[in-house]
Amino acid sequence: MNVNEILAKLHAKLPAENTGVVASYIPELAHVGSEKFGVHAVTVDQREYSFGDAQEGFSIQSIAKVLSLTMAYQRENQELWKRVDVEPSGTPFNSLIQLESDGGIPRNPMNNSGALVVCDVLLNYLADPKKDLLAFVHSLSGDQSIGFNEKVAASERETSSRNRALIEFMRSFGNIHNDTERLLDFYCSLCSIEMSCQQLAQTFLFLANEGQSPFTGEQIVSKKMTKRLNAIMQLCGLYDEAGEFAFRVGLPGKSGVGGGIVALRPRDYCVAVWSPPLNPKGNSNFGMTFLEGFTSEVGDSIF
Amino acid sequence: MNVNEILAKLHAKLPAENTGVVASYIPELAHVGSEKFGVHAVTVDQREYSFGDAQEGFSIQSIAKVLSLTMAYQRENQELWKRVDVEPSGTPFNSLIQLESDGGIPRNPMNNSGALVVCDVLLNYLADPKKDLLAFVHSLSGDQSIGFNEKVAASERETSSRNRALIEFMRSFGNIHNDTERLLDFYCSLCSIEMSCQQLAQTFLFLANEGQSPFTGEQIVSKKMTKRLNAIMQLCGLYDEAGEFAFRVGLPGKSGVGGGIVALRPRDYCVAVWSPPLNPKGNSNFGMTFLEGFTSEVGDSIF
Amino acid sequence: MNVNEILAKLHAKLPAENTGVVASYIPELAHVGSEKFGVHAVTVDQREYSFGDAQEGFSIQSIAKVLSLTMAYQRENQELWKRVDVEPSGTPFNSLIQLESDGGIPRNPMNNSGALVVCDVLLNYLADPKKDLLAFVHSLSGDQSIGFNEKVAASERETSSRNRALIEFMRSFGNIHNDTERLLDFYCSLCSIEMSCQQLAQTFLFLANEGQSPFTGEQIVSKKMTKRLNAIMQLCGLYDEAGEFAFRVGLPGKSGVGGGIVALRPRDYCVAVWSPPLNPKGNSNFGMTFLEGFTSEVGDSIF
Amino acid sequence: MNVNEILAKLHAKLPAENTGVVASYIPELAHVGSEKFGVHAVTVDQREYSFGDAQEGFSIQSIAKVLSLTMAYQRENQELWKRVDVEPSGTPFNSLIQLESDGGIPRNPMNNSGALVVCDVLLNYLADPKKDLLAFVHSLSGDQSIGFNEKVAASERETSSRNRALIEFMRSFGNIHNDTERLLDFYCSLCSIEMSCQQLAQTFLFLANEGQSPFTGEQIVSKKMTKRLNAIMQLCGLYDEAGEFAFRVGLPGKSGVGGGIVALRPRDYCVAVWSPPLNPKGNSNFGMTFLEGFTSEVGDSIF
Repeated sequence: MNVNEILAKLHAKLPAENTGVVASYIPELAHVGSEKFGVHAVTVDQREYSFGDAQEGFSIQSIAKVLSLTMAYQRENQELWKRVDVEPSGTPFNSLIQLESDGGIPRNPMNNSGALVVCDVLLNYLADPKKDLLAFVHSLSGDQSIGFNEKVAASERETSSRNRALIEFMRSFGNIHNDTERLLDFYCSLCSIEMSCQQLAQTFLFLANEGQSPFTGEQIVSKKMTKRLNAIMQLCGLYDEAGEFAFRVGLPGKSGVGGGIVALRPRDYCVAVWSPPLNPKGNSNFGMTFLEGFTSEVGDSIF
Repeated sequence: MNVNEILAKLHAKLPAENTGVVASYIPELAHVGSEKFGVHAVTVDQREYSFGDAQEGFSIQSIAKVLSLTMAYQRENQELWKRVDVEPSGTPFNSLIQLESDGGIPRNPMNNSGALVVCDVLLNYLADPKKDLLAFVHSLSGDQSIGFNEKVAASERETSSRNRALIEFMRSFGNIHNDTERLLDFYCSLCSIEMSCQQLAQTFLFLANEGQSPFTGEQIVSKKMTKRLNAIMQLCGLYDEAGEFAFRVGLPGKSGVGGGIVALRPRDYCVAVWSPPLNPKGNSNFGMTFLEGFTSEVGDSIF
Repeated sequence: MNVNEILAKLHAKLPAENTGVVASYIPELAHVGSEKFGVHAVTVDQREYSFGDAQEGFSIQSIAKVLSLTMAYQRENQELWKRVDVEPSGTPFNSLIQLESDGGIPRNPMNNSGALVVCDVLLNYLADPKKDLLAFVHSLSGDQSIGFNEKVAASERETSSRNRALIEFMRSFGNIHNDTERLLDFYCSLCSIEMSCQQLAQTFLFLANEGQSPFTGEQIVSKKMTKRLNAIMQLCGLYDEAGEFAFRVGLPGKSGVGGGIVALRPRDYCVAVWSPPLNPKGNSNFGMTFLEGFTSEVGDSIF
Repeated sequence: MNVNEILAKLHAKLPAENTGVVASYIPELAHVGSEKFGVHAVTVDQREYSFGDAQEGFSIQSIAKVLSLTMAYQRENQELWKRVDVEPSGTPFNSLIQLESDGGIPRNPMNNSGALVVCDVLLNYLADPKKDLLAFVHSLSGDQSIGFNEKVAASERETSSRNRALIEFMRSFGNIHNDTERLLDFYCSLCSIEMSCQQLAQTFLFLANEGQSPFTGEQIVSKKMTKRLNAIMQLCGLYDEAGEFAFRVGLPGKSGVGGGIVALRPRDYCVAVWSPPLNPKGNSNFGMTFLEGFTSEVGDSIF
């Protein structure tokens, strides 16, 4: 059985009923069909495998936090960790509780507070932040068609009270330097990036290839930085379900409330799966199950 | 340069002064020389490398929690996770705070509360718990000389108010079933196990070998269970410094307040390092630094 | 309408259905009839008013914490406040969370942890703690028949995991000095004291009389200490419903899970009410409503 | 010795050195002389007593929260308590922690979050909020000269990140309805009200007079509402030092970071004291000590 057949087989094994619920806090996300399912895998030597709605674009949401983190890490190197820690949090992604006891330093760059700090850092470096961000994504994926979904970004800006609270709270500790609305506009655009599973797997492939783009040969980040980015994804990429994901899937990965999850096996492959209904922790319900089967049948976990 | 030479070189590179502090909450631990340093690595094909005090026994303390967890997991399989979760905690190892909000279910089996639940499980299965535990350790290490340090165990029992509090607190939620003093006696004996770096690396080697003892060929736990044990170590093995360890060292590992750290690269090797002075998070200060260098120079991280 | 008539009228106004629930965590408490209702008021010039089951004994439970506090305050004076604070807690009566951040110092002597510290203090002073406690209660009430309910005390000791946890946790901070079981035995006896509403109102009358027993003329505690004991009851006497009680009733008071509440108006009167079904915060449901009406119709609040 | 002499005597007894620190988080507050000291008492039958800088205006800051609360309570009556609770918090005045567990409902209207909700309520009722607020203050005090300090208000708006965070956080729970900047402008103006001790004592005198202005005879709030406002001050008026204040002073009161404290004895008198250096809990250091002496020598506490 080849990999494409395995993808189909694993999909056929998913439960008839999906107990997950499509995210509705952003109205635009609630409109997406709950039956959508796509998966795409690509190896570091550029073999590609696909199933289902793998070419259909969706909102990658928090998955994009890894891309902004990569850009900030390129620019700040170790300095970055003075403003955001690298520890798992044990609390939900938008919690303010730990920020209060931690003096305004987010636990990690994968929860909302940490990603906002990372965006705040980037605003200091980028001449045209949204354009520069897209250019970076285009260079990673080799695909110039990837863009923001303006409706989703606008929808998110309008329901961003919690994120505004995080920004102002961190500002009160001196850990935010740019204007709130400018920062929020950049952050919401970041989260509104649309990709297909194929584009997503291709974009993240450099992290499975020791920091080098397999397509262009460009070294995006050093081998050492790549290891660290993967470590952060492993420990903090699935909110307060990081342990469960490591336990069941065993790969560094990142999820988004749009129903996408990307995961990668270092020096081997990157895989992206998409199924909108979320489990109670906010991660794609079928995505988790599918990737668990995938690492059992195709690619091993890293452990 | 061979591996033994690299070990010596990495040791030579450690700072002249160790800013860590030897654990003193158990009087017996405070007597150990702060200048002690040993490291031992063993590969799945049984090549061995050593440096310094690698044959001198020390108190492995919390490292032993992985061994009791392995025994309980063998007996309970998935049932075990009804009584203890597998998520990183974001709080210190002996915190009671999360237990209150989590209804008496410890976040993971690597902090004190989780390890106490695991010991409580074992008391239901083992005819002679302390003897059976040692027998298991002997079978893993192939070394019958490993034993408890009775002085350390007694010393720990006498300063166990916090652990008694954890036990009674979890009992109030129905998550402890055995007598407090019997449970505490077993737990303190577990933590008092003494091993050298060599014995420690050999004992944990099955976790680098997909669950099979490289010495006897015995399958201790299944390949799938091994992956999960390694995932738990990766995410929860270094208390609230798990992220930092993943970030700097990149291997599943477990530390103890005796100054030991064991880490392993799946399908490759297991390495144990010992240096008593601890950093503020309670992990061996030089141990962390040494392993960071080790994964850079010798064995890659898993990311 | 005289006061006895007002008591009857206020009782008649209580809702037909009591939505409260009788405490069941101690089996012995669950056996008490939920329809029981008694109230007794006594003025500092010794006029007495009664309604319903005012002469029937019940378990005063946490109300007794004020009596042990008075005894400890007599003996330690200001020294006592080094081991227990006088601030409202904002958390449930048996919470461990604040103890962790507050270094083992209970927020106030009215929650379980604080009352346990107070009992620990008394064990250092009293030759025969349980006998001496009863003697104190007899002298306050002028009634030698008041005693412990041994069944309730035994029942409470058997379900005391949470209190054992509090004791061991505070011991780990150095704030408990006596043997756990001895302390728990004393504490559970204290909580098992049985009184009728009449006995309860008479026992607490000295706190409405500037510290002096109106019956014997004895100065139990100084006028200044009396003010402070009343302030503690006002701010901390009804667990995390102290604000609601001050708001609705407006008097210093103390409640117990047996369904009793005692309250007093300084320089005026003391009133005790008993109705076993508790509201979700653990205070007598009808007791709260009755006292609200009582302060409106008979005796003013202090505000 | 008459009351004026007692005021002088109590002032003479204050320690030579004030260990408190003048608030500096708002630059404008830091400019006030730390040696300033004033006190003014007024009885319900309009006898007045003064000492020191009792006629000098200062920033009443959080004390003004009682005035906005009174206005909102007049308009919303019991409806108000659906949006803000009346329980002491056990945490600092600007904490976000409890808001998260309490679903965006502030613990009480005396901490920042609660006062912001109260201001949000008032914005729905007042045609010209700042003007209407001043008119209310003028009617209470009988003094048309009381106004905002625009520099202090502007200074506070510029350092309001924490308050912005509270607003946005509560908005995310649906408990804020007006524009953030408009709300903050109103709130900062409220806190910037300047009064002398004399004006302050006169303004709050209605709360000592069962809700009726002794000057005009107008019933500001009902007797029942007055009792409740006093209960709220008693339990929540001095942040997480409410217990200490009840314990030492024994009166309902409210403090501000400008160094003012106002307290009142129901049916008797109102007293305002001002001394800028604050203790570690944020309350006037000498103010606390002075009022403790005052209730001992002149006016009794309510307990």
